[in-house]
This record gives sequence, structure tokens and C-alpha cells, in this order.
Amino acid sequence: PFGPDEVWDHLPRETQTALLEKQAKFYVINAVKVARDAGMGGRINTVMQTCFFAISGVLERDEAIGKIKEAIEKTYGKKGKKVVNMNFAAVDSSLANMHEVTLPETATSTHTRPATVADEAPDFVKQVSAMMLAGKGNMLPVSAFTPDGTWPTATARWEKRNIALKIPVWTEELCIQCNKCAFVCPHAAIRAKVFEPALLDGAPETFKSMDYKGKDFEGTKYTIQVAPEDCTGCNLCVEVCPGKDRQDPERKALLLHDQMPLRETERANWDFFLDLPNPDRTKIKTNVKGTQFLEPLFEFSGACPGCGETPYIKLMTQLFGDRVLMSNATGCSSIYGGNLPTTPYTQNSDGRGPAWSNSLFEDNAEFGLGFRLAIDKLTEEARQLVGQMKDSIGSELAADILGAAMDTDEEFAAQRARVTALKAKLKGNDAPQVTRLLELADYLVNKSVWIVGGDGWAYDIGYGGLDHVLASNRNVNALVLDTEVYSNTGGQASKATPIGAVAKFATGGKAIGKKDLGLISMSYGNIYVAQVAFGAKDQQTVNAFKEAESYDGPSLIIAYSPCIEHGYDLGFGSDHQDLAVASGYWPIYRYDPRRISTGEKPLKLDCKAPTKTFADYAAIENRFRMLTKSDPETAAKLAIIGQEFIDRRWATLSHMAGLSYGNE
Amino acid sequence: PFGPDEVWDHLPRETQTALLEKQAKFYVINAVKVARDAGMGGRINTVMQTCFFAISGVLERDEAIGKIKEAIEKTYGKKGKKVVNMNFAAVDSSLANMHEVTLPETATSTHTRPATVADEAPDFVKQVSAMMLAGKGNMLPVSAFTPDGTWPTATARWEKRNIALKIPVWTEELCIQCNKCAFVCPHAAIRAKVFEPALLDGAPETFKSMDYKGKDFEGTKYTIQVAPEDCTGCNLCVEVCPGKDRQDPERKALLLHDQMPLRETERANWDFFLDLPNPDRTKIKTNVKGTQFLEPLFEFSGACPGCGETPYIKLMTQLFGDRVLMSNATGCSSIYGGNLPTTPYTQNSDGRGPAWSNSLFEDNAEFGLGFRLAIDKLTEEARQLVGQMKDSIGSELAADILGAAMDTDEEFAAQRARVTALKAKLKGNDAPQVTRLLELADYLVNKSVWIVGGDGWAYDIGYGGLDHVLASNRNVNALVLDTEVYSNTGGQASKATPIGAVAKFATGGKAIGKKDLGLISMSYGNIYVAQVAFGAKDQQTVNAFKEAESYDGPSLIIAYSPCIEHGYDLGFGSDHQDLAVASGYWPIYRYDPRRISTGEKPLKLDCKAPTKTFADYAAIENRFRMLTKSDPETAAKLAIIGQEFIDRRWATLSHMAGLSYGNE
Repeated sequence: PFGPDEVWDHLPRETQTALLEKQAKFYVINAVKVARDAGMGGRINTVMQTCFFAISGVLERDEAIGKIKEAIEKTYGKKGKKVVNMNFAAVDSSLANMHEVTLPETATSTHTRPATVADEAPDFVKQVSAMMLAGKGNMLPVSAFTPDGTWPTATARWEKRNIALKIPVWTEELCIQCNKCAFVCPHAAIRAKVFEPALLDGAPETFKSMDYKGKDFEGTKYTIQVAPEDCTGCNLCVEVCPGKDRQDPERKALLLHDQMPLRETERANWDFFLDLPNPDRTKIKTNVKGTQFLEPLFEFSGACPGCGETPYIKLMTQLFGDRVLMSNATGCSSIYGGNLPTTPYTQNSDGRGPAWSNSLFEDNAEFGLGFRLAIDKLTEEARQLVGQMKDSIGSELAADILGAAMDTDEEFAAQRARVTALKAKLKGNDAPQVTRLLELADYLVNKSVWIVGGDGWAYDIGYGGLDHVLASNRNVNALVLDTEVYSNTGGQASKATPIGAVAKFATGGKAIGKKDLGLISMSYGNIYVAQVAFGAKDQQTVNAFKEAESYDGPSLIIAYSPCIEHGYDLGFGSDHQDLAVASGYWPIYRYDPRRISTGEKPLKLDCKAPTKTFADYAAIENRFRMLTKSDPETAAKLAIIGQEFIDRRWATLSHMAGLSYGNE
Repeated sequence: PFGPDEVWDHLPRETQTALLEKQAKFYVINAVKVARDAGMGGRINTVMQTCFFAISGVLERDEAIGKIKEAIEKTYGKKGKKVVNMNFAAVDSSLANMHEVTLPETATSTHTRPATVADEAPDFVKQVSAMMLAGKGNMLPVSAFTPDGTWPTATARWEKRNIALKIPVWTEELCIQCNKCAFVCPHAAIRAKVFEPALLDGAPETFKSMDYKGKDFEGTKYTIQVAPEDCTGCNLCVEVCPGKDRQDPERKALLLHDQMPLRETERANWDFFLDLPNPDRTKIKTNVKGTQFLEPLFEFSGACPGCGETPYIKLMTQLFGDRVLMSNATGCSSIYGGNLPTTPYTQNSDGRGPAWSNSLFEDNAEFGLGFRLAIDKLTEEARQLVGQMKDSIGSELAADILGAAMDTDEEFAAQRARVTALKAKLKGNDAPQVTRLLELADYLVNKSVWIVGGDGWAYDIGYGGLDHVLASNRNVNALVLDTEVYSNTGGQASKATPIGAVAKFATGGKAIGKKDLGLISMSYGNIYVAQVAFGAKDQQTVNAFKEAESYDGPSLIIAYSPCIEHGYDLGFGSDHQDLAVASGYWPIYRYDPRRISTGEKPLKLDCKAPTKTFADYAAIENRFRMLTKSDPETAAKLAIIGQEFIDRRWATLSHMAGLSYGNE
């Protein structure tokens, strides 16, 4: 943000020295300001391209500017005249706002660049990850890596990207403690915690807190804290925040402020916040608010700002993360889930967290089923050994282990304690059977298998396998992050792409309705199926995750996921989800096979009949609007077919919701 | 069938000479009689094995017999004591019924072996197929084959297998002319024809006919004729025949008689029958009876006697065969469909018939979609060329060609005549455009694409592709020959295998319900879906094929197909189909998307609520009974779950049948 007269003093000493050594020509521009002023939000590509051609001399300046404008016309023409004109304005304004900086004689800065990762980071992060982050990965010897190719989790937290220009700032007195900000955050960069007041001793001066208002943790303090260097500034938390000043509704409990002046203080606040103990999870009610007191075991991924997929994954790790094994289909979620050299999957204070792997686009469900089969076999063996060795273990402990219920967090904690006792009891006994049981003892605590991927995987490329795995009747949980398009590969149509949307391979607007993966899966009768949209009804999302996981059979959650491919500012993703459900575009429901045997209707609709139209919804997303501009006739035709499709689907679903099978 | 004293005189001269040259030991046994008397039907493997060990001296005789009985116990034990005892009886009886034949001094026979194929066969059949049939395929030069690997159709008719010991004999006065015998015949080996009485001039003496009773071809004669050397003696036609002598119901219009004495006369009758012209297909009503006046273009395949798949394929070729392109998934249907060196797909008198190919198990639907895309593109090009050249073609002819309706056989005949006129008109004009149009002109007549395979393909291995192709909204027809098990590879469970059935990979009885491919496909709303069982309601099957083909979009027919893997005499396959439908085990229905736009209910059930139980049905098929014997407890449990599954499916289907969408 610094102009030609100020910028020098803000540069670290290394940078100053390098510029002087090279006697470089040095230009500055506040590209973000130029882009914003031109109405382009944070998109600076046009600005920077203009600067490059203006300075580089690759082409004659006027010719270069002409060509840039031609390219803009070609690239953005189909998005409409407004977008083209914004870009033209940005080009003109770029030339006016770029300034050359005169280099002084000597380096004057007293500060140097910060270390790539903090000194407190684990050895692996310092020795391997940091080298790669610094662009020196090719200097690492083979011996720096693990022989089996595994990679430690909990490393994304050491990569401080500082990409947000603005971050949310919390105003306690306006906060209603709903935790929705933390719920919707795609990067787990805003969190809530309750803690004993005494723990505030030694807090940084600017650390904020307030009395907690709930009965569940009476007498505690409550804080909302942002991770300033991990936040992407997407604005979702601000949009979703209901805490307003009644006198001045523009004043909200969360509002964005420039990050730079806050960075140092908030970093210290964040560190202090992290050090505060998490509340006892066996005492937390897992409603929307309660889930956000559970530690997320997925944080600071490389997903886009405002990503609509990651809140679902984060929620899953909050609820079950300490016993999760995940297989991840190729796609966005495999990229941000395993972004070399850092991993966003992390561990709780006991060192437990999701074990994660990505196999192939076409075999992810089968890969995850393999986890399940292996776990089941090893558990079976461990249980047999406990039975055989019950005299050495103690018959009461053995019986408790074998008979343990494992539904609640409390029961899981109890079983983990028993396994610890078992290990203590058998320690030092080196009979082969005992050695084997000690190897397998952790399998006496139930695991949770999650098979995760996008619609390209679930509806298309991996569908044959997903169908087969769901039909297997095994206890696996499939989570489909449905962006309705191949997002990671650049926006090709999938069978999840709706009528009327423009995508690659469907540039004229998709003419065929979206495949109904939910209805298809319900046809089995023994698959738990939920369709969810957290921005429309967050509690329904929470319920679906809890029910899916607790169901002792295959489960499928189809999760509406806003995506940059939809063409709007994702800071408003929650509103779009709301409209998607209200217009019948994305009906939400839960089909629970457990209800069949009690004579209840297995399918429950969690939304009312549509009150808005498909046109209402389509009007606010570029994926639909593009067609209205490029081919209004087809767009109008598809809009009608799209509405018919929605009407029919709603009729089908509400008809299906009336079906029960009597009390068997 | 000949004993030691008679057999010599029945041998052809070559065989006699060979025996004498070798001074061979020569034994005879009427193995079929021994097996039948032991209650084993036509299964002679135990008999022949016993003979081999008794004669060969590989093991000491008593030891060998002991080992055979041990093996029988092991192999058939799980099928029950009755089966084991039958086999024991066959072993003992084999030894008593095997006789050594004393060789005379010289060959005495006056007859020689017949030629491998008849002299009237086409050159390719004589030069290539016959060599391979004679076991001399390795003597063929590469140049004997076509460079592109294509194989002529209409060749199975030259391979006279003569495998039936008994064939049906027609008694005219008992016949009610329903044509059901021809409808159910898996091998197109019994046929019906109407023809002008004058054509009987020169008929063989034993050729039978009667006055035709229908109004449609008044004044004609009617004949049911068997192909004696192609019939497999499966008995289906006899079982399905309703023509009975009221005084003596055992006397039916069709009854089996020994083939050997009938072979020569019936061969002559068959040849005469084939030479009679087929009735004009534009005058045939395509009800069950009428379809059997349409020439089958699929005949004499290598399918098992009584095969439940082939009647569907045959029917399809009768209705649409002269314009069909078929892609065939790997499985039984690809084996009997392309049994080197002969092909059962054949041609009508105009040389038209199905073009057939098999690709891979996992890509058959995609392969067939490729046919569709290619046809559509070539048709588009041909139509463009007709438009561009309308002056040379004649504007009236050009307009008629481009505007032609092609729904009925009459309309197809008219369009073919127009294309012939077009070709005549353009003949001799060697402009490049004209040459191209002449190449493509046949694409001006609509083609019918059929994608065919078994349940292993459709429910499992090829399902991802089938789903994708059906979702593509293209005009293809998928036919699933559902035997509920991987038949061709030896009986492995598929997702089509029902609860309680024993199969490989489900030897303890399948515990998961059958996947509902029909319900899944209905979820799309734009796929025509029918579930059929020709033995239960043949007219419903005919309707489904006609509707599927006429629907300008994707169609799916799921066809109940009795199979030797089900474990019963397939001669009774029609009764089993009847019971399958009556018990709710196999509900039949048709879902037609065309009804949506008229406000009708798209799903029509074609059967009533079950009147029988799953237990009634399961009791008569070994695939279920095996479990009752090997594990009665599990069998009882699965029988209950199986009934619940049926009840739920019926409840779901009848609920779905109540759904309509208003008049759009």
C-alpha cells in the first residue's frame, strides 16, 4: 500500500540490498486499490499485466495497451459489457498509478525478513517443509523423507501466508455468542473458546473476552479469535454474523479491518488463544454452537477464500476427527487436503487426528472401503486376542473392553482409558500373542471411515465404484462436496451440473438435468442419505453428519458447495445457499434407514415447498447469467426446462417423503 | 442308442475303417438312458467318467469307483442326499450297461460321414468356417480372413449341431395358432409362417399345414416347423403350448419325439419351409402372435438349451433387426453372439440384419453410445448434402427424404425406396459431393442402436458407463439380460443377485438385497425403463420393446432371464417366470417419460400385488435350496429378510406408480 516516497523504508534489509546490488529499476503501484476503484474487487491480474507491458518494452507501449484491451474484449466479452468496461478502466488507471522509485545510495532498513517458519516448529517442518516453502526443495536429500512416503500432519499451521488484506475484528458487546462465524469459516481461521476466567492472567493487553452466556459452561469467559496470518479475508464470517448494533446496523460484532496494523498484536492474541485449554468435549452439546467449541482438526488449507467445501470437512473433523481415516478423491479437496509441503489435517493435544490419503479419481470409494475392511479385520483379531488372554488382562477389564458402547465422546474416552490400562497391564510380557495384541490394541477403539470427493468423482468418474461401495452395506461415510462442476480442472460439466449452467463441454448451457445421486442412493433402502447446505440450515447439516456417522452401514452426504466457478463473490455464499434451498434448486433432506424398522417414514424433507423460482436463483450467479448474455433465446428455453425440472423433483421428493412401510 | 450288436452297422465307413486300422478296443454304452434312469436327466458326466476309469486302467477298477464316489459326495453333497444317491446309482448302472463290441474283419458300411457344411453354403463358410468346425483352423492362411477383422453374419445356420435327442412334433388339429412356441424358443428353431395355399405345390410329403384362422391373413395356410438339426430339445415350446386334446390332456399340439428317425424328413420340410416367402411385414400386427411371423435375425446360437436370454434378443431382431447396430458386453451373450467360427446374427432376404460387435466388459455402454454418435453425425451430413443437392436429386424427392416419418415398417419401406431412387438418380455423377452422399445415403434411414449385456455388466462392471450413457439423453436402447449372477464366468454373485441365493463370493447366501437398477434409472425422469419377464406376460414384453425403441431418448429394458445357474430344468423356465412375478420377486412395469408431459403417471405396474410368497418361489430353485440344506438357520433368516425386501420394493413401486406431475 505504500507510495514511491514511503516504500523504501518498509522493505526488509535483504530486499534493499538486492535492489541496490542490481541497480534495479523499481516501480510501485497499489494494484489492489486500482482494481477496487475500478470495481474489480481484489482481482489484480489486469492491473499487473498492464504494468508489465508498460515497463518491459516487449511491445511498443501503445500497441501493448491496445492488445491488452483486445484480449479483455475476447476473454470477458461473454460476461457482459460491464465487466469489459471495468477492466478497461483498470488498464487506464494502472498507467496513471504506477510510479518509479528512486533508489537511495545505501540500505537503511533495520529489520530483516522473518524466518520461513517459526523457531518453535517441529524439526521436520524446519528441515523439510521450510526448505520447500522457500523454493529450495531440490536441495533436500532423499534421506530427509520417510521411507514409506507418509507425511506428518499438523504442518499447515507453520506456513503463515498472510494473504488477507483485511481481517475480521471482533466487537464483544455486539456478539450474541452464536459461533456461526467459526462454523462457516473455510480455513478454521476464526474460532470460539470458553475457558476459566483465571486463565486470563498474563493475557496480551489487546486480547478480548467476555462473560459466557450459556448454561453449559456457566461462569466461564468466551472469546472469538482470528488467526491473522491464516485468515484469507473472504468475509463469510462478517456476512453470517447476526450481532448488530440496533442503533447502527452497519456496526456488527465482526467487521473487516486492514490486516497489516493488526498483524503483530493479533498474532500474539492467537498464540495466547491456542494455549488456552479446549473445553472438555464430553460436556459439549453438539448443536451448531457447540460444534464450534470442538477443536477443528483441519485448518489453514490452500482452498480458495470463501471455499464452500471446507466448512463441511472441518465440521466432520470437529465431530469425529480423532478417530477418522479419510480417503480423498482427486479434485480440489485432494489438492488443498495435501498441499505439499504442508498438510491442513492436524492433531489434538493427544496427538490424534485424521489419517488422510488420496488415491485415484476413479477408485476413491474402493480405496476407502479398503480402509474399512482392514480395520474390521484387525479389530476382529484384536477382540479375539482379548478374549483369549482375558486371564492375563483381568476378566473384568477384558469384558468391559469387549462390551463397550462407543456412541458418545464420553464412551470413547472411557474405552481409550481401558485400552491404556490394557497396554499397561501387558507391558513387558513379550509372548508373541501379547506383542500382537499390543500392536492391534488401538483397533479396540472404533474408527470412522470417510470417503470424500467432489461431484466429478461421485457423479461421474468414480460413480461405478461409489455405487458398489455403498451397495456393500459396510460402515463407511461418503461425503460429496458438490460444486456441480469439475472445479479443480477448470470448470468442465459433470453429471451434477444443472440445466442452464455454462461450463466447459456445455458452453451452450447444459441441457440435461442434474443427476439425482440422492434419490438413486435411496433406492437401496439401506443407505443413509442426506442432502445438506450449511448456509441454508446449519443445524440440519450438523444432524446429518451425526446421523451418518452413527449409522452402522453406508452413508452418503451430498453437500452443496459454493465455488468460484459459480461466478459471484463467495463472501455471500451463505445467502446463495439460502436461496438455493428456498427456490427448490437444492432441496435438503435426510433419509434414514433406521426409521424403516420403526414404521416411520424414512425420508424427511428439511425444507418447505419452494417460495422462490429458479430464475431468482439463476439471476445472481454468472454460470447462468453468462448464457443469458451470449444466447438469450437458449437461456430462456433452459430456464423454463430448469424450472420444470425443479418442480418435478420437488413433486417426486415430497411424494417419496410420504412413503412408509408399516411397523415391521 | 445302439447296443453292441447293432452299433457297427450304424457307423459311417470312415469310422469303421479307422477302428479296424487301429484294431481299437471298442465299447458302447447308452449313457443318456443310464443317466435318465438314474433320475439325472441328460447329464452324462458321471456315467462317462465311470466308463473311463473302468476301461482305462489309470487306477485299479474298485479303487477308481471308490474315488469317484468320494468325489461325488464332495461335489454334490451340498445339493442334498438325493442328488448324491442319483449319482451313485448312475455309477453302478454304468458298469452294468457298458459293453465291449467285437470288431468284424472288414468295413461294411455303405454310408460315409456327411460334409461339415452343406454344399449350398457360401464360399466363406465352406473355406473358413467349415475348416474351423472340422478342427483344422490352424491350417487356414492369414489371407483367408478379412483385413479389418469383420466376420460375415448368417453363418450359424450352416453348422448343424444335431444335439437334440428329442424334438417337438406338431399335431395340427390341436394347434390354436398362438405362436407362443416360436416366441419362447431360445434358438429360433421352431417357427410359424402363413403363406398362399398354392405354394404347397411340390411340398415334401410329410410337410404339415392347416388353414390359417386369423383375419389378418385370411385364406392362407399356416405351418409350425421345427429345424430338426438346430433344435436343442429344451422342451420350452412343449411346456408353453396351450393346444391340448380335451379328452386326453397329455396329448398336446407339440410333444417331443426321438430326433433320429425324424431327421431326414424334417430337414427336407425345414428347407421347404424356409423357401416359402415371409408374409409382408407391413401387414403384420406386432402383438405376441404377430411378432412370430416376423423373420428372426438371430438363430441357432450356442446358448444353453432353454436359455432365458436369447428369446429377448430374438424378439428384438424380429421387430427391428434390419436396422439394428448392437454393442454387446462380455458375458454369455457375447459368447453365443459371436461363437467363432459361426455367427447367429443373420440377414433377411434383402441382406439386411444386425451389425454386431463386442468390446469390453467395462465399456460396452460407451461403445454403443459411440455407434449412436457416429450415426447421428453421418446422418446429419447426409441430410445436409441432400439439402444442398436438391436440384440434382429433384426437389420433391429431396423434401420427401428429409421430411420422412420413420415409425412403422411401412414408413421404413417407403424411405428405403426413396433412398434407392436417390442412388439411381445420382448414379454416374462422380462429383466429390455426390460420391460422399452415395457413401452416406443409407444413413437417411434411421438406425436402431442396442446396447446389450448381462447383469454383471449392467449392475457391476459396466454400470458407471451405463449410467453415464443413459444420462446422456441420446437415443440408445439398453437391454439387460438379468440372470442375477455372473453366468458365463461360472456363477459369481453380482449386485443383481438376490437375498438368500448361493453364488460364488456369496457361498453363505447373499445377505444384501438386489440393486434396483430400474428404480435408479427412473430417478432421471428422461429414461424409458421397463422390467419384463416374457414367460409371465409376453405381451408386456412386446410392448416394452416397441415403446423402448420408439422413444427418442435413452431406454432401458431389464429382462428376467432364467439360467442354468438357477438350478432347475429350464424347460420349465416359463412357469418360473410366472411365479417370479406372482410372488413379487420380479415385479414387471414400464416407466415412460412421454407420459409426464401429458399429465399421466409415468410408471405403470403391469402386475398385481403379490399373491405368492418369496418362499414359494425360492423353494423351486437350487440356488436358494442349496442354502436350506447347507445352513438352514441362515436360510431361514435370509428368507425372512428376502420377504421383507420384496414387501418393501412392492410398497415403493406401488407408491411411485401413484406419482404424476400434473398436465405440464
